[in-house]
Amino acid sequence: MRNPYANAAPAQVRAKIRAGELTGQTSGMCNGYAQANLIVLPKDYAYDFLLFAQRNPKPCPVLEVTEPGERMLRHIANADIATDIPKYRVYQDGALIDEVTDVSPYWREDLVSFLIGCSFSFESELLEAGVAVRHIEENRNVPMFNTNIACDPAGAMHGNMVVSMRPLPPEQIVRAVTATAAMPRVHGTPVHIGDPAQIGIADITKPDYGDAVTIYPGETPVFWACGVTPQAIVMQSRPPFAISHAPGHMLITDVNNSLLKY
Amino acid sequence: MRNPYANAAPAQVRAKIRAGELTGQTSGMCNGYAQANLIVLPKDYAYDFLLFAQRNPKPCPVLEVTEPGERMLRHIANADIATDIPKYRVYQDGALIDEVTDVSPYWREDLVSFLIGCSFSFESELLEAGVAVRHIEENRNVPMFNTNIACDPAGAMHGNMVVSMRPLPPEQIVRAVTATAAMPRVHGTPVHIGDPAQIGIADITKPDYGDAVTIYPGETPVFWACGVTPQAIVMQSRPPFAISHAPGHMLITDVNNSLLKY
Repeated sequence: MRNPYANAAPAQVRAKIRAGELTGQTSGMCNGYAQANLIVLPKDYAYDFLLFAQRNPKPCPVLEVTEPGERMLRHIANADIATDIPKYRVYQDGALIDEVTDVSPYWREDLVSFLIGCSFSFESELLEAGVAVRHIEENRNVPMFNTNIACDPAGAMHGNMVVSMRPLPPEQIVRAVTATAAMPRVHGTPVHIGDPAQIGIADITKPDYGDAVTIYPGETPVFWACGVTPQAIVMQSRPPFAISHAPGHMLITDVNNSLLKY
Repeated sequence: MRNPYANAAPAQVRAKIRAGELTGQTSGMCNGYAQANLIVLPKDYAYDFLLFAQRNPKPCPVLEVTEPGERMLRHIANADIATDIPKYRVYQDGALIDEVTDVSPYWREDLVSFLIGCSFSFESELLEAGVAVRHIEENRNVPMFNTNIACDPAGAMHGNMVVSMRPLPPEQIVRAVTATAAMPRVHGTPVHIGDPAQIGIADITKPDYGDAVTIYPGETPVFWACGVTPQAIVMQSRPPFAISHAPGHMLITDVNNSLLKY
């Protein structure tokens, strides 16, 4: 079933989200516009996170960083980051303490917001390039896996990369690589093509996050760095305070996906 | 005249630089290997600089950031950043106070080194794509200009972009765009193609830095973001202490240019 907001303008949908009229997942909304992951940290932790992102650009492609305390974004959306996401998670010392639709009561003058690119953007490129995206065909969440690929650490932040997987017939792999190569700001090219065991995945039918999808005979699993990586690694480092979007409840930006190319 | 170290291995040339046997410019050395710009700042200023780089990736493509106090690089070269560049500049409160071939006596435990991509890398790609690079043909330094293109500020760091210019016959512009599009980590695609006045350049024959080059009738000036930008903007912000490479005296890395693609 097509999302009733598939062709809505981002500003209209964000207004409904801000008013509390929309509190669900954003997948399928505002087709053509990029959606973004959110991580909010105290300024004291911002350098380590920004450095982690610089060292790991594939799992952690930063689209915008706010000034400390600033709620309004300046670049990717005319949005108030404390109200314009449908659902937030609030963490203390790495533990989830609240799930809310508005984080204004939690806002502090030392908070820095990081908006991070999301694979929704490159999936629309894949579809345009004629590449099958199995979990969309099967109306499921993308399958995601923990791997043995170590991220380059920064300060307290260290851990392995999480990847998303899309099975492809061999003749579509080159197109999938070139289509995503054009989008380095939303995870870019695959990090692995082929044998899951080589990156520490024991059972390709049992994802660690998201849903399993059908892999037809002759198809090759293709793996991309996943935006779950920075969120998992930040929370493992147990910052005294943090906010993130709730899974699947993203910021809908004013940026057309095609503008994220090059 | 071909550089006598054109085909030397980076480690060999860095050893001669470390021993004080080579103190000149690095242009033309170790063909095929990326060279990098250096900016060293106290940790207190590192966040603002990293954020400036994140917000201005075209003029400021960061290749590596060290831990505070750490002299050895981990990724782009097996190098001691305090000795393996032929010539350094040392700044206090934004003013040049020394030019030396070894900054060990100035080293401090709070210093963070930023290694930044350099257009030497994409010029080798242009040449391979059959695109003429005029200043190389004429054995001059690339012409660089101040512009009216505002960088996105971060903390104390703000100012306009500096660009480099290469004149091209119209039929080579597309190839120049696609060749440099593949190299977002070394300035990427042009920031302007055509009329210099549109980006605030009054006289294309009078560069603000580097040398003028011949522009033949029918050629179009093509402008790329330049690594001089971050250095100029950092020094204008007058940090209490800073170190940079001396112009043209770069770090020769162990990274083949082709590995900077995507």
